[in-house]
Amino acid sequence: MTVPEPTSAHAAWLPAEAFRPIGARRTLVLGDGLLVETARDEVAHACARFGGSLLRRADDRASGQASDRASGRTGDQAGGQADLVLALATEAHLPAAAQAVREESGQDERPIGAEGFLLARRGEVTVVLAGGPAGLLYGLFHVVRLGEAAFGGPRPVERHRPALRRRMLDHWDNIDTHPVMGQVERGYAGGSVFWQDGGPRGDLTRVRAYARLLAAAGVNAITVNNVNVHATEAHLLTDRLGDVAAIAAELRPYGIRTHLSVNFAAPIVLGALACADPLDEDVRAWWAAATARVYDAIPDFGGYVVKADSEGQPGPFAYGRSHAEGANLLADALAPFGGVVHWRAFVYDHRQDWRDRSTDRARAAYDHFAPLDGQFRANAILQVKHGPMDFQVREPVSPVIAAMPRTRVAVELQVTQEYTGQQRHVCYLPPMWREVLDFEPRGPEGPAVAGLADELVAVSNVGDDFYWTGHPLAQANLYAFGRLAWDPRLDPAALLDEWIDLTFTPAAAGDPERLRGTLHAMMDGSWLTYERYTAPLGVGFMVRPGHHYGPDVDGYEYTPWGTYHFADRDGVGVDRTRATGTGFTGQYPEPWSRVYESAEECPDELLLFFHHVPYQHVLRGGTSVIQHIYDTHFAGADQAAETRLLWQKLTDLVDPELHARVAELLDEQLRSAEEWRDQINTYFSRKSGVPDAHGRRIY
Amino acid sequence: MTVPEPTSAHAAWLPAEAFRPIGARRTLVLGDGLLVETARDEVAHACARFGGSLLRRADDRASGQASDRASGRTGDQAGGQADLVLALATEAHLPAAAQAVREESGQDERPIGAEGFLLARRGEVTVVLAGGPAGLLYGLFHVVRLGEAAFGGPRPVERHRPALRRRMLDHWDNIDTHPVMGQVERGYAGGSVFWQDGGPRGDLTRVRAYARLLAAAGVNAITVNNVNVHATEAHLLTDRLGDVAAIAAELRPYGIRTHLSVNFAAPIVLGALACADPLDEDVRAWWAAATARVYDAIPDFGGYVVKADSEGQPGPFAYGRSHAEGANLLADALAPFGGVVHWRAFVYDHRQDWRDRSTDRARAAYDHFAPLDGQFRANAILQVKHGPMDFQVREPVSPVIAAMPRTRVAVELQVTQEYTGQQRHVCYLPPMWREVLDFEPRGPEGPAVAGLADELVAVSNVGDDFYWTGHPLAQANLYAFGRLAWDPRLDPAALLDEWIDLTFTPAAAGDPERLRGTLHAMMDGSWLTYERYTAPLGVGFMVRPGHHYGPDVDGYEYTPWGTYHFADRDGVGVDRTRATGTGFTGQYPEPWSRVYESAEECPDELLLFFHHVPYQHVLRGGTSVIQHIYDTHFAGADQAAETRLLWQKLTDLVDPELHARVAELLDEQLRSAEEWRDQINTYFSRKSGVPDAHGRRIY
Repeated sequence: MTVPEPTSAHAAWLPAEAFRPIGARRTLVLGDGLLVETARDEVAHACARFGGSLLRRADDRASGQASDRASGRTGDQAGGQADLVLALATEAHLPAAAQAVREESGQDERPIGAEGFLLARRGEVTVVLAGGPAGLLYGLFHVVRLGEAAFGGPRPVERHRPALRRRMLDHWDNIDTHPVMGQVERGYAGGSVFWQDGGPRGDLTRVRAYARLLAAAGVNAITVNNVNVHATEAHLLTDRLGDVAAIAAELRPYGIRTHLSVNFAAPIVLGALACADPLDEDVRAWWAAATARVYDAIPDFGGYVVKADSEGQPGPFAYGRSHAEGANLLADALAPFGGVVHWRAFVYDHRQDWRDRSTDRARAAYDHFAPLDGQFRANAILQVKHGPMDFQVREPVSPVIAAMPRTRVAVELQVTQEYTGQQRHVCYLPPMWREVLDFEPRGPEGPAVAGLADELVAVSNVGDDFYWTGHPLAQANLYAFGRLAWDPRLDPAALLDEWIDLTFTPAAAGDPERLRGTLHAMMDGSWLTYERYTAPLGVGFMVRPGHHYGPDVDGYEYTPWGTYHFADRDGVGVDRTRATGTGFTGQYPEPWSRVYESAEECPDELLLFFHHVPYQHVLRGGTSVIQHIYDTHFAGADQAAETRLLWQKLTDLVDPELHARVAELLDEQLRSAEEWRDQINTYFSRKSGVPDAHGRRIY
Repeated sequence: MTVPEPTSAHAAWLPAEAFRPIGARRTLVLGDGLLVETARDEVAHACARFGGSLLRRADDRASGQASDRASGRTGDQAGGQADLVLALATEAHLPAAAQAVREESGQDERPIGAEGFLLARRGEVTVVLAGGPAGLLYGLFHVVRLGEAAFGGPRPVERHRPALRRRMLDHWDNIDTHPVMGQVERGYAGGSVFWQDGGPRGDLTRVRAYARLLAAAGVNAITVNNVNVHATEAHLLTDRLGDVAAIAAELRPYGIRTHLSVNFAAPIVLGALACADPLDEDVRAWWAAATARVYDAIPDFGGYVVKADSEGQPGPFAYGRSHAEGANLLADALAPFGGVVHWRAFVYDHRQDWRDRSTDRARAAYDHFAPLDGQFRANAILQVKHGPMDFQVREPVSPVIAAMPRTRVAVELQVTQEYTGQQRHVCYLPPMWREVLDFEPRGPEGPAVAGLADELVAVSNVGDDFYWTGHPLAQANLYAFGRLAWDPRLDPAALLDEWIDLTFTPAAAGDPERLRGTLHAMMDGSWLTYERYTAPLGVGFMVRPGHHYGPDVDGYEYTPWGTYHFADRDGVGVDRTRATGTGFTGQYPEPWSRVYESAEECPDELLLFFHHVPYQHVLRGGTSVIQHIYDTHFAGADQAAETRLLWQKLTDLVDPELHARVAELLDEQLRSAEEWRDQINTYFSRKSGVPDAHGRRIY
């Protein structure tokens, strides 16, 4: 296999230079299997560039053959001692250093798992011992990440194993281009990386390059089409299955399984059946047959993703069936082949009457799904958005996650920055994700979300843009998502370092510390900066309807979407208490049920999500709500200006084209941040009549 | 020529039955010319249906030939005395009755004009004596409108002559369909009546039927494409001129001249010139040559319509030239052929900063154009929207109309209901138009707008919908526009009677009085009803951005469009006074300059257009602003409900399909009116904190 390095795309965190430490050394890869071959190809490719060598097994060396045709070295040189050994732990014969690692680790009873690996350094040899071919490939990318440090001095045995078994990206990509939404729904990085001109891209090199980047970040599953399954895309399940198989073939060598979003009404739309009732025998037979055909074409197919009875998509409600019955229909079809169905919990009434304050969209997922716990098949995974609303910059953690102990749950994050600046604003999201993952629904005695979730799924931020993500710095979110899904305990700042060192090292060789320091100053706090200049204190939305970019405080206030702030001349916020509001706080276990219920105990940043309070209500932080609004909005816009200035000082350390792209985006971010600041401040100043304590300019 | 009666379209105000009084009688048509032939064809067609006869000249009768092949009568019968004589006044030989009318009217020195006619009845003969072929055709349609009354008893000589020489409809139709705006910009009646599948419709019968309807209403000019001239439509001027000629051929027999919207940058876009500078010789030569080719193809071509330097369209500002220089460029190209250019005065900054209260979009047209008065060619017509903003339900009359005494001015109305219910709401507009036409910019001593305007132009509300206008009752606006452009003194209620009697007579034969009474109750006050439940007191907008349907009070409040209301917790409205505001009131002559400047003298219905006042400000009508808002919104929605009930009682008098269409639309109107009521009331209640004096429900 040719290692994919398309010239039409930025190298992101896998520039050639990142492979120098391996490519300049001698590496032995032991084992069989597709992913082991991928690892071998990667090593050979690096060696061809940097002069190292891919060694063969000892018996190969004995015959005196050249180590690898692609190697820059001669057969003689290749015959020396390996600097790096990558081996399956099950190999019969291992070099001495690897054998020593295996013996030492043998006392640890914890299994490594097929995706896990051990890393150690014995003498002059760095050893990766993998539980399976995927683990070997992940081990290789881990060594790439370590760089020269992988080869410096002794290293005790480390165990690496993904915390979550599935680390998945959902692509909201369509084959066709929608006149308003574009090709990728909520995509801010150009067209689809998979689909073009009505089918899969002719040249799929870029798809394979994407798989390679994702494998290096730890992702192992992708959904290749939008959860809103439109007419054309519905056919991917049947007569256009070959299109999916073509993409799956590109993802497979990097250990990424392909999943498909399907339309719950497919038996009607594609099969000409009279209904899609999950208990109808013809429907069940149709899904079983369709699924068998999928596995004929794609033997390692991952499964289906379904958005049902949501925002106009069809679902089991039409037949008086529960969502468990709907999900189990597909789970049963997939079970014989080891596939899974991801069933989205994003079900709510999107035709709400704003005049009816008793309906609360935040309640909907719990109300629908909590009663169904225990009714889902083992291969049905409930995919729950991390917050109860819709990927706002600040939400409480969804109460559904803790309410489904007998159901497999995937927590859904949004890497694409729909509500967080649409990849025009710098907004490094891992600090938010860590807050979600660290949240303890039952308090310090109980497990955190990271322990409750079986999987992490995120909506991808990738398109066919040269930098993959529109905003070059948004690559960091994609990278960090994969890494956090592998290990939710990783520190966002450390992940940013990983990303910076891999991505910028060559260009920043002159002064890597300055580059790193500046990027941290720009990105570490960028999520909080974005929060400061947008909707305050967890109240959410206040965006332009439809495209969701830029401020419009009342944009959703009188719409059917259920996203309100109820600001009047006296106060603002949504009363979701049990005492006087919608009762949403009751969906949480203790202590949060009590904490959120109380306007005094509720964390400041979520106050307006849970309570309607007067503008003069004093926050735990000591300022009034109205003064907090003014203060944070002035501060947030100031920080956007500061971020822009910081970047201007990096011209000497960053590729000029990338620098220019980011500089242009930072201009827009500042313009937009000032627009947010002024609209929000003016709106609340006009409404409350309270002047800014510091006399700053409000229009 | 075949009289066009397409089955794909409603007959509107020309049902077959309307021709019975003529078609059952003997008619003599004397004169030559295309439009005289059209009149002859119309009469023959009616006679074929109702048994009357089209008579030939006396010398024809002497030869004993049959009157007309299409006639239902025999030659013998056709030889009798005419009941109706339609003749050009210049005919050498007239029947005795017509001769008597000519002699009597000869003492009146006022010319009839080519479009005018005399109407009289002498003995048993009704006589139309026309100044030209167009006048003869208008005379025929006038007799149709009179029905049996045209043939009952003596009638002294009446002079009929259009008050305005050009009575024009602009079609904002595109050849291509825009993914969001559709094919017709601001169109609410389906696709274009002219364009389909990338070119003129294959079957143009409907275009001719449209021309016929318009001729019967008095319209004599049409622009066949959108003033926003997109890429495809730009080519209508050159290589797609044949498409325009094909449409012009259908409009010509009914006396309607074809005009074309052109792109000011056409010399660059179509001619590959380096610029479109109006003073550049190559540019002038290009326009001269292009225009000569247009007249080769369409000898009676009307001229160009131009939207320049407006909402992104190119214009003379790019070259540092004035709009007079821009308009004169095209006027000079058209002058040799007798054509005119309509130059739109809708020029303003659509990238305004809402934070800058010194900029006032209302001022823009006057600021741009008043200094140019006297600089425009005689065949350049400044086309001025009736209000200073953009077709809101209530605006003051544009001060530009009185500011251009040495310029030919066309006043632009909007028949398409962009801001007045989008042909889902009943909104009979002539009462608004009469207010505009009757407005006396210099007070009672000076002329009214109807006397200042050289022309009336309106944006058409027609599409390829079966009923032409989406809402069947919106036909009345189209009809009345033509009639008002012919005679601005006509009474809106009387025009509604004309329209009702022509359109509904056959179906309502059982009880025409009940039908007429009910439609008056539904329509006479419908404009005021719409005003009541939408934006109050002249403040305007408060609609959903983009599509402009339904309420969104702050929808445009923080946008670059210059359409603000500045509501805060204390008050609402735009200060456009000279004393403390934008100074817009200074663009009016006395007495309005003084009247509008004063919050006490300013008419209530325009108060918030000119003044920012506290909610407790007491209107001239005696209630406070806030109570007025509540009262009118409850009343408006109640009236929408009443309108709906009135229609339900007409099932026996109206065609069932038409009844069902209107009933469905009235349901939507009521839903929307209640939404407006509740959003506006809630918005101002939340902001002002003032309760409704009558304790009605506000959310």
